[in-house]
Amino acid sequence: MRGETVGEELFRHRGPLLVRNVLIDQQVADICINEAGHIEAMGKGAETSLRGQDTLEIDGRGAIALPGLVNTHTHAAMTLLRGYADDMNLQEWLEQKIWPLEAHLKGDDVYWGTKLACLEMTKSGTIAFNDMYFFMKDAARAVIDSGMKAVLSYGFIDLGDEDRREREIHATEDVVNYLLGLKNPRIRPAVGPHAVYTVSDEGLRWLAEFSEVMGVAIHIHVSETEHEVQECLSKFGRRPPAYLDSCGILTPRTIAAHCCWIDKNECALLGKKGVHVSHNPQSNMKLAVNRAMPYPSLRKNNVNVTLGTDGCASNNSLDMFETMKCASLLQKFFWNSGTILPAKEALTLATSNGARALGFGPGKIAPGAPADIILIDRNGPCNTPLHNVESNVVYACNGSAVNTVICNGKVLMHHRTVPGEAGIIAGAARAAEQLLQRAFS
Amino acid sequence: MRGETVGEELFRHRGPLLVRNVLIDQQVADICINEAGHIEAMGKGAETSLRGQDTLEIDGRGAIALPGLVNTHTHAAMTLLRGYADDMNLQEWLEQKIWPLEAHLKGDDVYWGTKLACLEMTKSGTIAFNDMYFFMKDAARAVIDSGMKAVLSYGFIDLGDEDRREREIHATEDVVNYLLGLKNPRIRPAVGPHAVYTVSDEGLRWLAEFSEVMGVAIHIHVSETEHEVQECLSKFGRRPPAYLDSCGILTPRTIAAHCCWIDKNECALLGKKGVHVSHNPQSNMKLAVNRAMPYPSLRKNNVNVTLGTDGCASNNSLDMFETMKCASLLQKFFWNSGTILPAKEALTLATSNGARALGFGPGKIAPGAPADIILIDRNGPCNTPLHNVESNVVYACNGSAVNTVICNGKVLMHHRTVPGEAGIIAGAARAAEQLLQRAFS
Repeated sequence: MRGETVGEELFRHRGPLLVRNVLIDQQVADICINEAGHIEAMGKGAETSLRGQDTLEIDGRGAIALPGLVNTHTHAAMTLLRGYADDMNLQEWLEQKIWPLEAHLKGDDVYWGTKLACLEMTKSGTIAFNDMYFFMKDAARAVIDSGMKAVLSYGFIDLGDEDRREREIHATEDVVNYLLGLKNPRIRPAVGPHAVYTVSDEGLRWLAEFSEVMGVAIHIHVSETEHEVQECLSKFGRRPPAYLDSCGILTPRTIAAHCCWIDKNECALLGKKGVHVSHNPQSNMKLAVNRAMPYPSLRKNNVNVTLGTDGCASNNSLDMFETMKCASLLQKFFWNSGTILPAKEALTLATSNGARALGFGPGKIAPGAPADIILIDRNGPCNTPLHNVESNVVYACNGSAVNTVICNGKVLMHHRTVPGEAGIIAGAARAAEQLLQRAFS
Repeated sequence: MRGETVGEELFRHRGPLLVRNVLIDQQVADICINEAGHIEAMGKGAETSLRGQDTLEIDGRGAIALPGLVNTHTHAAMTLLRGYADDMNLQEWLEQKIWPLEAHLKGDDVYWGTKLACLEMTKSGTIAFNDMYFFMKDAARAVIDSGMKAVLSYGFIDLGDEDRREREIHATEDVVNYLLGLKNPRIRPAVGPHAVYTVSDEGLRWLAEFSEVMGVAIHIHVSETEHEVQECLSKFGRRPPAYLDSCGILTPRTIAAHCCWIDKNECALLGKKGVHVSHNPQSNMKLAVNRAMPYPSLRKNNVNVTLGTDGCASNNSLDMFETMKCASLLQKFFWNSGTILPAKEALTLATSNGARALGFGPGKIAPGAPADIILIDRNGPCNTPLHNVESNVVYACNGSAVNTVICNGKVLMHHRTVPGEAGIIAGAARAAEQLLQRAFS
């Protein structure tokens, strides 16, 4: 056993790890992480369980330990479009700006965009995310590089066209089989029906069945805008949740993003079906959807509510600290009570609820759990004074308060250094530039 | 002329300053700052205007220059109460938590709380703020230490009691005369009628007259909650803006904070009277006021709209980057259009509109203007890619992207180092602890 380790050795290390003297649940304790990346023991003197092994050590004095944050809805590679088109109406924005550019995307763009997203998420304390996009094999490469965990789904869009549906089915099968074949415990495949307005009845039914057979998750946008609900109602005579349920899409493996325009009965339906909901307050506000996800009603129906940032084209940041704060503020404001979604609960949404939704363990710092831990600087202005850790974390801090990130027992960031950061920034900037050149030449 | 200067020399320096090769309005340029703290010249080769003088130099490569941010509504020393009481209903929160603690405040608490606020604001790119609180001579000490600029007002609360009014009048006169006597161009006094529900008719009239005679600003809370409007209506037969106007409070020297519950006619009245409005989106959301300031209508009436964080008990951060983003998002969401308050406009609210409201120059980087400049790291994830500077600054970055802060030509932060940070953190933490001990012993 030696003193604190810093630099390359820590990032390369694959053996046991000891985080010493960190503040956790208002106590100073050590956290012992075994070679398999799980928490072996906690508390004072816990380090004896690792004695004699090749253990590296992190000095946790001056830090608060929290479970790593989990982002349950994003389109990671859209970092390349950050700031490319803002302050527009939703339909114009999609049709005139986002889709024309996305038509020129290549696998390498998605690789670099996802690498940038992973860097940004790591630097703001996120250890796992739920991604829906294209070229998902390339996205997987980036996630593997980064050391993070992700659920990856190919965005299935058939627009009612049979030929296109066949191609999307093939693409989905291909990606799911490829990702399962990686046998990487940090990567989980999912199917990604985009939404009721972009996927046919047949497509939805096939995806529901395929996801059940393969035992993989379903990642879908649900009732994001009032327009979506009205259109579904006039086309299928049912609102999106009932219609999706009739196609077999509402399951305990399903993560439904947004759910802004759902009523009380629909909250009950989602609860009954065991669907996980991803609340994306910043995207919903920026795109002016004009109604907040009904958190009080979802909570009453025991729905597992989680938090997401959405893609960088509609947020434009992947900082889950921002999202925790904004979720808590928006719920209070829209549902008209200063007591809704208190800080401690917002932190639960962003950690254990998120981890459960994605199948990455309990999302808690506890013996036996995967060592997904972030260390927050307790001496910065945002943690001064320290009357209440959860209040400070949710309402006062942003991602820059995170000093160290550990995912599955591996150190991804220490003293705010992520290995290879400059190369990722340069590669992503170049990919974005070339994408624009291709689109407009 | 030498290469880049770092460390103590830069912070102690009181002579000319040269910021080289910084990105400003999409061009790489130098900014020359003279001994008086004003921008002398800009552009390539501009440094010749300073040749031969004792000029220090900042290397601006890799940085974007923006005007320093201006926070037009806060109660700075409430940093000591950060996280002390959250997630409560407004009335309970004030009566059971905030006011009982504030009753034990001493001048030294306000000094340390304001020092912590100044540190936090400096570290997130704010160079000036509009403060209303108690023990304002102590607040002034902290502002002078910090190198920032502030408009300081004593919060006048007489609750209709004549004796109390006399004491508040005396306290206001004392503070205004003291602050004027400092003859410090970075400190401007104001009067601070708290609100229509805490200050008598006589108090408001006296403050209006006194502020006119002394030529100082008026800082007041206006129509923050629906309850305030209803109570004013039933007590005085008029809504707050009309009532305040009858007392002489609505002037071109007035900064009205919140203005959530104002109608179209009131927007026109504020415009006609030349009142500056401070929008505090995060406080309004956290305290569940349930209506957003009507920005579209204020804008139509040419009201000078600015941004504020409010105090740390109701936000709980002083980061104006967060506030810019939240303002833009809340306006889009509440007023139901994705095109309202675009990024460039949000930045104007936080810079030139704020500086004009507080009387601290044009809030622009231009020859002749005070050198109030922040340098933002253009190589961080939040500025990658760099399709659009304003979009990235408002929607993707937070205060941690600020590398360097210059106020009136003096360097307050460089490479994220603020002199004396650890001492300020320790002093403020101790003051908060002792305040709680006094209150509960």
